[in-house]
Amino acid sequence: MHILVIGGAGMVGRKLIERLAREGRLGGKPITRLTAHDVVPPKPPQAPFPIDTRVSDLSVPGEAAAVVADKPDVIFHLAAIVSGEAEADFDKGYRINLDGTRHLFDAVRLMEGYTPRLVFTSSIAVFGAPFPDAIPDEFFATPLTSYGAQKAIGELLLADYTRRGFFDGIGIRLPTICVRPGLPNKAASGFFSGIIREPLAGQDAILPVSEEVMHWHASPRSAVGFLIHAATLDGEKVGPRRNLTMPGLAVTVGEQIEALRKVAGDKAVARIKRAPDPVIEKIVSGWPRKFEPRRATELGFVAESSFEEIIRIHIEDELGGKIAD
Amino acid sequence: MHILVIGGAGMVGRKLIERLAREGRLGGKPITRLTAHDVVPPKPPQAPFPIDTRVSDLSVPGEAAAVVADKPDVIFHLAAIVSGEAEADFDKGYRINLDGTRHLFDAVRLMEGYTPRLVFTSSIAVFGAPFPDAIPDEFFATPLTSYGAQKAIGELLLADYTRRGFFDGIGIRLPTICVRPGLPNKAASGFFSGIIREPLAGQDAILPVSEEVMHWHASPRSAVGFLIHAATLDGEKVGPRRNLTMPGLAVTVGEQIEALRKVAGDKAVARIKRAPDPVIEKIVSGWPRKFEPRRATELGFVAESSFEEIIRIHIEDELGGKIAD
Repeated sequence: MHILVIGGAGMVGRKLIERLAREGRLGGKPITRLTAHDVVPPKPPQAPFPIDTRVSDLSVPGEAAAVVADKPDVIFHLAAIVSGEAEADFDKGYRINLDGTRHLFDAVRLMEGYTPRLVFTSSIAVFGAPFPDAIPDEFFATPLTSYGAQKAIGELLLADYTRRGFFDGIGIRLPTICVRPGLPNKAASGFFSGIIREPLAGQDAILPVSEEVMHWHASPRSAVGFLIHAATLDGEKVGPRRNLTMPGLAVTVGEQIEALRKVAGDKAVARIKRAPDPVIEKIVSGWPRKFEPRRATELGFVAESSFEEIIRIHIEDELGGKIAD
Repeated sequence: MHILVIGGAGMVGRKLIERLAREGRLGGKPITRLTAHDVVPPKPPQAPFPIDTRVSDLSVPGEAAAVVADKPDVIFHLAAIVSGEAEADFDKGYRINLDGTRHLFDAVRLMEGYTPRLVFTSSIAVFGAPFPDAIPDEFFATPLTSYGAQKAIGELLLADYTRRGFFDGIGIRLPTICVRPGLPNKAASGFFSGIIREPLAGQDAILPVSEEVMHWHASPRSAVGFLIHAATLDGEKVGPRRNLTMPGLAVTVGEQIEALRKVAGDKAVARIKRAPDPVIEKIVSGWPRKFEPRRATELGFVAESSFEEIIRIHIEDELGGKIAD
């Protein structure tokens, strides 16, 4: 089985490749080869199968056809310009997130006798406020960012190309990934991870919103689990509605902080510094807080059931089990 | 006020231009000029203002920029490859319905200091079965045709370009237009109009489905009314959710036939010949039957309240008030 990971240098892509390398199999079948594609060089781990890397821009005409020319059995399409950049650079966002995706889909479509499983990462950013208390599976997509619009368009293309038999697509709407490893960034959502990651590393973190703010989270480990499950799921069971809101955990910032206290104590919590920022508070107020992801749950997708679990996963996977004193 | 009608040679486009020509004004302002654009030559009516015609293909790069170069104040974008053709010719459907629309939107976006009202005709084909009994405004778009996917993508682009301030867009999802004038065609939906139009003209009509089939209708006159209202509506009142399901009338085929009996008598009804067609029955079973278009109704869009009214409008507007004996 040959697997192609587009966006293989990103955080989720790297973790996906690491897990595939560790397990050596996908859906019970041995992996014989993996291709990691990105616009920057992916750094693949040791694996029991060969890993090729390929660096190019899928939005350049012809490039997508080259990337899928040797017909990988499963394609993970994780590549995207993130929300903030897609908002700041309109052309780039549409070029990468819409045209790049469409080029990939068309490249697969135009190959004879080739209908791979194609897993596309969408986002809860396809939804825009106002929302019901918990967003049901049949709620409409009215994104309030260009990134959300581009992802929602990708979902429509994925479903139509699948319906036409050009490939076998599954779109998964990822929750906010928490705890996101790495350095603090300027994303408006950065604090959701920062208030956990920084204190655990012995650093101060800024909390720019009130403790009542609720949001929808899943760990990086769950995100990889969603991808693997989406790659191996029986397409017949999914039917024509190919885009699924992934399960997650709806917690308030206050609940995040209490979970941190239980796992790491008062000293860690004391490293969270309140600095209310009305701009961030306003951005966040337009984001989804909670979902009722019945279909994905019925189809076997699983996320964490407590925020303590999310914190422990971070400590295991990123900190080698150790918390800063 | 300069008005551009893209798709000006189509049935709804012609009727829109006829009404604008008759009234000489839009939203209280005198029309000084109208441009009718299509891929085939539009045949404009006599009007109290000059009407230019322009024939070209908006999906050809550069053409959209030429069409909007003189900055029309209001743009009606009605042009599309219809459902059956978009399904039969995948490339053509995406080229015209998606790329053509995006070229138009980008041409407007790239002009400095130009934010016209842009009215886009979407369709209830953005929805795909299964449905609740009446589809609410917040129901998700999961189209089951490429045409529906292309229209849903157009809606997302319209909302995002409007949010970014590139133009002031309103998308309207038209019901099935009934009674559609002209010759019978092979569209699966053709019988909804055929069973009224043909008997009124003294011709036999084929009914391929059961009388229990329910569908969502509005007259051509209402469709033009929606367009005019969408062109003159206060955008502030609409907010960021720019795509609206238009009001209509949910009637069964049996109710259509009873309305025909009241308006035109038993002799007309006797011209309807049952010829059950399982293929058409199956296609139609995937279509929306009924909506709860609260937002559009609150915003002042109005459709017919009885199917007799729809029939009488056809007799007035298409048959000069006369029914075949």
